[in-house]
Amino acid sequence: MAHIQGEIADMIRIGIVGGTGYTGVELLRLLAAHDEAEVAVITSRAESGRRVDDLFPNLRGYYDLAFTEPSVDALAACDVVFFATPHNVAMNLVPQLLESGARVIDLSADYRIRDAELWSHWYGETHASPEYLQQAVYGLPEVNRDAIKDATLVACPGCYPTSVQLGLIPLIKHELVDLEHLIASAASGVSGAGRQAKIDNLLSEVSDSFKAYAVAGHRHLPEIEQGLADVAGDPVKLTFVPHLLPMIRGIHSTLYARLTAHPEDLQALFESFYAEEPFVDVLPAGMLPQTRTVRGANRCQLAVSVPQGRDTVVVMSAIDNLVKGASGQAIQNMNIMFGLPEGTGLHLPGLLP
Amino acid sequence: MAHIQGEIADMIRIGIVGGTGYTGVELLRLLAAHDEAEVAVITSRAESGRRVDDLFPNLRGYYDLAFTEPSVDALAACDVVFFATPHNVAMNLVPQLLESGARVIDLSADYRIRDAELWSHWYGETHASPEYLQQAVYGLPEVNRDAIKDATLVACPGCYPTSVQLGLIPLIKHELVDLEHLIASAASGVSGAGRQAKIDNLLSEVSDSFKAYAVAGHRHLPEIEQGLADVAGDPVKLTFVPHLLPMIRGIHSTLYARLTAHPEDLQALFESFYAEEPFVDVLPAGMLPQTRTVRGANRCQLAVSVPQGRDTVVVMSAIDNLVKGASGQAIQNMNIMFGLPEGTGLHLPGLLP
Amino acid sequence: MAHIQGEIADMIRIGIVGGTGYTGVELLRLLAAHDEAEVAVITSRAESGRRVDDLFPNLRGYYDLAFTEPSVDALAACDVVFFATPHNVAMNLVPQLLESGARVIDLSADYRIRDAELWSHWYGETHASPEYLQQAVYGLPEVNRDAIKDATLVACPGCYPTSVQLGLIPLIKHELVDLEHLIASAASGVSGAGRQAKIDNLLSEVSDSFKAYAVAGHRHLPEIEQGLADVAGDPVKLTFVPHLLPMIRGIHSTLYARLTAHPEDLQALFESFYAEEPFVDVLPAGMLPQTRTVRGANRCQLAVSVPQGRDTVVVMSAIDNLVKGASGQAIQNMNIMFGLPEGTGLHLPGLLP
Amino acid sequence: MAHIQGEIADMIRIGIVGGTGYTGVELLRLLAAHDEAEVAVITSRAESGRRVDDLFPNLRGYYDLAFTEPSVDALAACDVVFFATPHNVAMNLVPQLLESGARVIDLSADYRIRDAELWSHWYGETHASPEYLQQAVYGLPEVNRDAIKDATLVACPGCYPTSVQLGLIPLIKHELVDLEHLIASAASGVSGAGRQAKIDNLLSEVSDSFKAYAVAGHRHLPEIEQGLADVAGDPVKLTFVPHLLPMIRGIHSTLYARLTAHPEDLQALFESFYAEEPFVDVLPAGMLPQTRTVRGANRCQLAVSVPQGRDTVVVMSAIDNLVKGASGQAIQNMNIMFGLPEGTGLHLPGLLP
Repeated sequence: MAHIQGEIADMIRIGIVGGTGYTGVELLRLLAAHDEAEVAVITSRAESGRRVDDLFPNLRGYYDLAFTEPSVDALAACDVVFFATPHNVAMNLVPQLLESGARVIDLSADYRIRDAELWSHWYGETHASPEYLQQAVYGLPEVNRDAIKDATLVACPGCYPTSVQLGLIPLIKHELVDLEHLIASAASGVSGAGRQAKIDNLLSEVSDSFKAYAVAGHRHLPEIEQGLADVAGDPVKLTFVPHLLPMIRGIHSTLYARLTAHPEDLQALFESFYAEEPFVDVLPAGMLPQTRTVRGANRCQLAVSVPQGRDTVVVMSAIDNLVKGASGQAIQNMNIMFGLPEGTGLHLPGLLP
Repeated sequence: MAHIQGEIADMIRIGIVGGTGYTGVELLRLLAAHDEAEVAVITSRAESGRRVDDLFPNLRGYYDLAFTEPSVDALAACDVVFFATPHNVAMNLVPQLLESGARVIDLSADYRIRDAELWSHWYGETHASPEYLQQAVYGLPEVNRDAIKDATLVACPGCYPTSVQLGLIPLIKHELVDLEHLIASAASGVSGAGRQAKIDNLLSEVSDSFKAYAVAGHRHLPEIEQGLADVAGDPVKLTFVPHLLPMIRGIHSTLYARLTAHPEDLQALFESFYAEEPFVDVLPAGMLPQTRTVRGANRCQLAVSVPQGRDTVVVMSAIDNLVKGASGQAIQNMNIMFGLPEGTGLHLPGLLP
Repeated sequence: MAHIQGEIADMIRIGIVGGTGYTGVELLRLLAAHDEAEVAVITSRAESGRRVDDLFPNLRGYYDLAFTEPSVDALAACDVVFFATPHNVAMNLVPQLLESGARVIDLSADYRIRDAELWSHWYGETHASPEYLQQAVYGLPEVNRDAIKDATLVACPGCYPTSVQLGLIPLIKHELVDLEHLIASAASGVSGAGRQAKIDNLLSEVSDSFKAYAVAGHRHLPEIEQGLADVAGDPVKLTFVPHLLPMIRGIHSTLYARLTAHPEDLQALFESFYAEEPFVDVLPAGMLPQTRTVRGANRCQLAVSVPQGRDTVVVMSAIDNLVKGASGQAIQNMNIMFGLPEGTGLHLPGLLP
Repeated sequence: MAHIQGEIADMIRIGIVGGTGYTGVELLRLLAAHDEAEVAVITSRAESGRRVDDLFPNLRGYYDLAFTEPSVDALAACDVVFFATPHNVAMNLVPQLLESGARVIDLSADYRIRDAELWSHWYGETHASPEYLQQAVYGLPEVNRDAIKDATLVACPGCYPTSVQLGLIPLIKHELVDLEHLIASAASGVSGAGRQAKIDNLLSEVSDSFKAYAVAGHRHLPEIEQGLADVAGDPVKLTFVPHLLPMIRGIHSTLYARLTAHPEDLQALFESFYAEEPFVDVLPAGMLPQTRTVRGANRCQLAVSVPQGRDTVVVMSAIDNLVKGASGQAIQNMNIMFGLPEGTGLHLPGLLP
């Protein structure tokens, strides 16, 4: 298989920092089907020396690889380094990697917000490398494809932000809605909380239940508002309420906005807006997205409706938080950065049922 | 146990029509702990002759009772008859029962909407006994307690309507919000869809997934709008989007409204509004409701928040759809109708975890 | 409600050590419906000072109680002290409590195994109060009811041991099976692993999956073998394989044994064996137990079968691990110890669906 | 993509009968990644005319195909026809297809049991084409690879039989166990029950619960006993107890046998037995299979243990019932029949988490 180390000389050599979390194992799963890239290095302080397939037995037979202590030299020898870490790791390591010539795709939040003060406000600490914030390209291909091509540092969008932005952008771009009163009622599977030992995410705590959380303020809010404001050319105000779903994978956002104009055919508008996008799928009128139809797939499925023909538009948006919301989108960005067909390794249907 | 037939002469004698669904078995579970009432008759055409505890083995030892063919005579001999049926059953049978002197608590939708034409529009058929619509009392005790006391026919609210109304009423009563643009993003466990053989509700279809449904129009919309308009004294417009949760029990509504006035302390306002209500629990500031903390309990837990201090208020509301959203509320209504302490048989903490 | 502190002078005053786990909150849920007992003290080092209903919002309105630091004096002033702790807590504290006159019901493993060496072998440490092992009564009422009445120290059986023993005892008592080759293929919901921060029990790790664990040796094995040997009057050998179910509550054991005698009617034998037992329910022939029919209930449901009429008998046994497998059985023991009707507070049907 | 109709002239042309069930959609998902085959025809009486991706939106973009009424002519024009139907369909249609030169891979039970009388006993009807039973090759590649190569009719094993046989065969082949007293305690996700409208398989009925079923006799029993007897060269007796898991995919079998010989190293024996098998993975000592590590993958993971060094051996076996237990194995058989590398289209890691 193509992903075995060193097999083919001209493959993209990948380093992964922090490979023991869910975005890490998902990168490995997806890259196992990628013909043009190989994982050369994967780091973990906690699991250093342990075989990757000992921790993740689904990968047995696909990788002959062990976790290693993070080493700038080893990572710098890669063509591209993915950070599959919590925030606060990449911003300390990225400068050295960029200087040594590697390109970086950061799945964490460190370079998503351009305003260092705003970042500090939400993440509760000073940013370690604010000078790179302007250079970082926000990795939402549907918005920034051209900039991504030449980027050396790509900040992959968060999972909620991907889902919410893809749903609202057509409305904003067409200047159809009140930008001051956007609402996102979003819900995520528990894998979005990461592979960390926390009582709150035990099956016994979250199975068979549903709740909102972080209503007073979630870190993805400033990221979404920044992205939407970029599209609008004006500030936007979003009420963002995330919820926790009793399931592993999937994000579903239900988006509400006040129509300020009344286009004849929102369905056609959405279909046309995303007609050329390989990984955004506007469902036919009457169908509604389900997270299960995108499970494991790098795809956002959308539907739009104006209930009772009133002046509130509703958009439904579903992704797999670990794929289009994280690792799949990261690979999509890599494909763009390295001039590969954008869908390389990403054409796998969702796992249904 | 009190529920064994005929034990005490002056107990309330209960008839249940349509006892094979989830609201039926939930009535039986709750009534097993009710000291002042006994189930005398339970009907089912499909399961006639079968023991109740053969169909529902959780009830073994609690009921020595079998399903029977519906008989007006047998039902009319009861003090009160519960309809735990799909819509379109009660409206054909209730007139005879009322005439014979029984009181009726209808858990179905037949008498919830006072306007027969509106009912017909949403339910797709002519109402069979529209002359009883005005007489029916809408069984939301927090709004109609006095009228319920003397009612002969109580129309129990739907599950979504209970959850949504209890969350929005304090805001509406205090004239704090824009009535034209209310939003309810609500989510229900699958038991809300009933105990019917449908592919759509197989575990393999809905487990590990999340979706909106009936976005274009759900039958609970007119019921909610009627209830809120009653409180407001004005028409209201609600955008209501229900979602299906991969779990059995529980409804969670996240309610959004535009503030037209800015009260100093919404938390205190909510706490004070429901201070005397035994089954509405406004959580302390900072806590958010979860469906699991009301699982099996006749209780609505609420929280209120104004994210970022902007002008959108958010209310979270959680109930067990089968208890406060159906069978528990029905028993609460019965207690009120028969002059019992309102909480008789209903003081059971939720099942957590 | 009866459980509010100090309401009635002659109620049983209860102390709970370690009330923040799942058996702790389950004791509180069940005791809320117990008319003859009140919780006077509940301890937790980690949560000292926090209100019980802040940690467990399902209990709001039922307890006006906060966790306190463990204090021997405060506990010794109770009539009975429940240990809802991991092993290795009770064995250090129990001697002082017994000396001060309190009676103790230990839900942990500390006093279940009479042989201190065997205990040390499986629990990896020296027993702190081996002199109490002989005095401790194994709290399986169906076997030891008389001894429990006068016990000062009751060691409640583990969850798996309750389920397995109740299923096998009729066969062993009637000398029907080969004692050298018993097999228990048992499966538990995740709540059996406790309310502890462990990656292994995250929803993302265990939902939608199934596995065996501890095949080489589980700590409940020696407890089960001791209990069955007591009944047999001879040593027994059990192959015990526990499995982890993707759900919160419930244990189901499928028990296999070689028939050495062929009774005419095993169904009748089981029914007769447990005819007088209030909390063991042998299902009618043809019905099989499900964990959901005992969810939240203090009940073991059993079925017996001899597939193909060969010489292997199969027994199915279902309990709620937190009720009949822990807190419910503990209260059943308390009722016996204090001369109350055995079912006081325990007559609640399972929560279905 | 390779699966679009007619793209490449020399691809294997596939017909699928009964494509609306879970094995049907799983064939489509897997074949979307198969470079050497295309789906030319897919039939369904109930959904005739409907686009495949309208019923299964995970397939949008992968298939430009609609369900059609079954037509022998259209199917006979295919190189191979898969039956993804309930039993009792293939046995009526297969003779005509074989006569017209197509090869058939039957995922149903119609040709699995060679003895027509035994088949009739378990399936409750007369077999429609018993003359083909001897010609049918049982499609377990690990046993019958050579015969499959030239087969015109392959009967794919059932899901339980695949899991149980792969676990027991090494023990039987090495003559290590008592053939008269084999035990299989197996558990399946609900997708094994198919995509049919049945109350019993509603999420509200089977979620958060666990039960044994068909203890008195399951149709997979004679199939397993036939397969094991073939390997043993002697009759075998198996006690087979299936259980229903509250999850979608996955089968886990825990197999118990009495050792009649005591090999030095069962771990090495298992590893060596399956060393050359691409889709059977004996885990390293100390690891136990989980269904989640094979979710979506064509793989059986195994572990073997002798608890307490006694004389009962335990084997754990995990597969995805829809992949190695059905559609994946069917494609594996197709690859063998058409001389392709056996793993074509099947090298996808399991979806974890």
